[in-house]
Amino acid sequence: MSLERAFDFRVLHASTHSQARIGEMHTAHGLVQTPVFMPVGTLGTVKALCPDDLKACGAAIILGNTYHLYLRPGCEVIERFGGLHRFMGWDGPILTDSGGFQVFSLSMLRRITDEGAEFQSHIDGSRHLLTPEKAVDIQNCLNADILMCLDECIGYPAKPSAAKAALERTLNWARRCKERWMDAGGSGALFGIVQGGMDAELRRESAQRTVDIGFPGYAIGGLSVGEPVEQMLEMAEVAARHLPEDAPRYVMGVGTPENLVDLVGLGIDMFDCVMPTRNARNGQLFTDRGTINITNACHRFDTGPIDEACGCYTCRHFSRAYLRHLYLSREILVYRLTTIHNVYYYLHLMERIRDAIERDEFEAFRKTFLACRNES
Amino acid sequence: MSLERAFDFRVLHASTHSQARIGEMHTAHGLVQTPVFMPVGTLGTVKALCPDDLKACGAAIILGNTYHLYLRPGCEVIERFGGLHRFMGWDGPILTDSGGFQVFSLSMLRRITDEGAEFQSHIDGSRHLLTPEKAVDIQNCLNADILMCLDECIGYPAKPSAAKAALERTLNWARRCKERWMDAGGSGALFGIVQGGMDAELRRESAQRTVDIGFPGYAIGGLSVGEPVEQMLEMAEVAARHLPEDAPRYVMGVGTPENLVDLVGLGIDMFDCVMPTRNARNGQLFTDRGTINITNACHRFDTGPIDEACGCYTCRHFSRAYLRHLYLSREILVYRLTTIHNVYYYLHLMERIRDAIERDEFEAFRKTFLACRNES
Repeated sequence: MSLERAFDFRVLHASTHSQARIGEMHTAHGLVQTPVFMPVGTLGTVKALCPDDLKACGAAIILGNTYHLYLRPGCEVIERFGGLHRFMGWDGPILTDSGGFQVFSLSMLRRITDEGAEFQSHIDGSRHLLTPEKAVDIQNCLNADILMCLDECIGYPAKPSAAKAALERTLNWARRCKERWMDAGGSGALFGIVQGGMDAELRRESAQRTVDIGFPGYAIGGLSVGEPVEQMLEMAEVAARHLPEDAPRYVMGVGTPENLVDLVGLGIDMFDCVMPTRNARNGQLFTDRGTINITNACHRFDTGPIDEACGCYTCRHFSRAYLRHLYLSREILVYRLTTIHNVYYYLHLMERIRDAIERDEFEAFRKTFLACRNES
Repeated sequence: MSLERAFDFRVLHASTHSQARIGEMHTAHGLVQTPVFMPVGTLGTVKALCPDDLKACGAAIILGNTYHLYLRPGCEVIERFGGLHRFMGWDGPILTDSGGFQVFSLSMLRRITDEGAEFQSHIDGSRHLLTPEKAVDIQNCLNADILMCLDECIGYPAKPSAAKAALERTLNWARRCKERWMDAGGSGALFGIVQGGMDAELRRESAQRTVDIGFPGYAIGGLSVGEPVEQMLEMAEVAARHLPEDAPRYVMGVGTPENLVDLVGLGIDMFDCVMPTRNARNGQLFTDRGTINITNACHRFDTGPIDEACGCYTCRHFSRAYLRHLYLSREILVYRLTTIHNVYYYLHLMERIRDAIERDEFEAFRKTFLACRNES
């Protein structure tokens, strides 16, 4: 059975002055232009948005959280719909994580063994065992276009011995995930995950040995866990250098607009992060000239949009004064409108990045963008 | 100066077997077909919806709450936008209440005199005096298409002497509101309000003396305050009978779908109520066959819509199982989707009512509708 199935990735153009590249990723639910940002739809909804909002924002692919959906509403509900797409009304591609990160960060973790991770639900305390095989089964039940291997995430800082042990367990689980995935069929592509903590040598080893197992795509995990930005970028660079040119590279859970621009320059193709959605709900709105706090009194009488340069639905229809009023009044509408703006900002940024790479002007774009954001 | 200004009302067809009629109300911001239901947009948003949602639901006119908007964001903000329409992005007609009802029900009321109502803000405790003149001034600042006179609302049950005193004060305030409105100009139409408690004779007197003052439209206030439905309908009927045929009649703050159908049969043209929006946020969804509680376990695996017969955005795109999942997960999206359904249901009901009146089949419609709703 082919590793690709409905999945295919092609690099269309590589930048002359950096590792940045544009590509096309074909999935069972459609085409994705890379570099791409994937809005996070934890519980079968990108918080406050419906699928039409996501499309209007330019979303091509979204992320679903296996841990959350497994606990609520449960696979037995979602399989009645033939998967997450029809359940939530999104007909584009979906990438699901393995659930591992949430088991380590959200649940009451009971025990981790070579077999898997035993945990208690953060909702009702019920006990569950997440094995590599089960992680694949759940993601297949969700009908994910891209599935992620179960990996072991470590904290920051971590001892070298802990990073090495997690690396070995992640590789062992990756083999088992691949085996289950090969046996199970399904139209999704399974991605391996590079670990290795903040050790460049372990990152290299993890990348090479994950590539030896062989996957249609590769993620770099365990970043943005508290380390300095420079270290995050260094680890991503080392890992990316040891991943194949012809497979997509995905840095998980990162980051700020600046992070995305820098990581694209290191050859990263895929991103996800809760920052645009979570910050929106906290009234923090992104613009090229920095971040706006919509609750600020200076916006009280401001009849202009969040960003004159922005083409999002919110900026085309509503003023800062109105958004501030809604926010201070805790009106539900504001969460949708601010989320639309931030998601549009991230997705439009990726579009500008792709355009710059295509014109072979990415480095100039990167410098101007970072200078402008840092000025604010 | 004409009483009508940009305002005009015409009865297009009157029912043969009841007082029901269809009409056209012309306002400064467009045409409204009556009988009409006005979704309540308390703080410059019909909770959880944006103006495009309202249009897609079929809204022709919405209501704004003077008390709330006066306190937050305040007239000084809204006047920068030339009124509430541009502030909230709704270009259709807006009716504003006088603020009186909220002063009596929400604020810490300090003192009521012939001069006006002295109250403390429910937000910050600041002191304010709402006079008839100020009520008109604020509504003009909001650029309302229809303004309401300040009236005195009484509780239920109330002594006859209290009902009589409130009636006299309401008439006195109505005269002062009209005077201010005539002096101030503005494109909105000012409606008088009939009071009189649960006393048919006082209702008759209030209606006749309000008509003697003369307004382009009339509201019937002080209903649905705890009295039995039969009494509410009787008071509305008495008042309506003593209001002119050629002016719109508006029952304020009522009610259930059944109430609307019954009141249309008594010759009422306009309605507003928080029931569709508030119930939506509580998971209570309207259908012709009764009300559904979306949290009910019976919907867990239900891949069908709230109502197979419904053409709303929510029913065309999402299942009961998905809405239940979002609701139990407290996902923000659900409040918009359920509100869309309930507002559509109310507005579509009014459309069916207008069609039935036009075909002179309103009584048959009323009987079938009530029998079906009561069966559930």
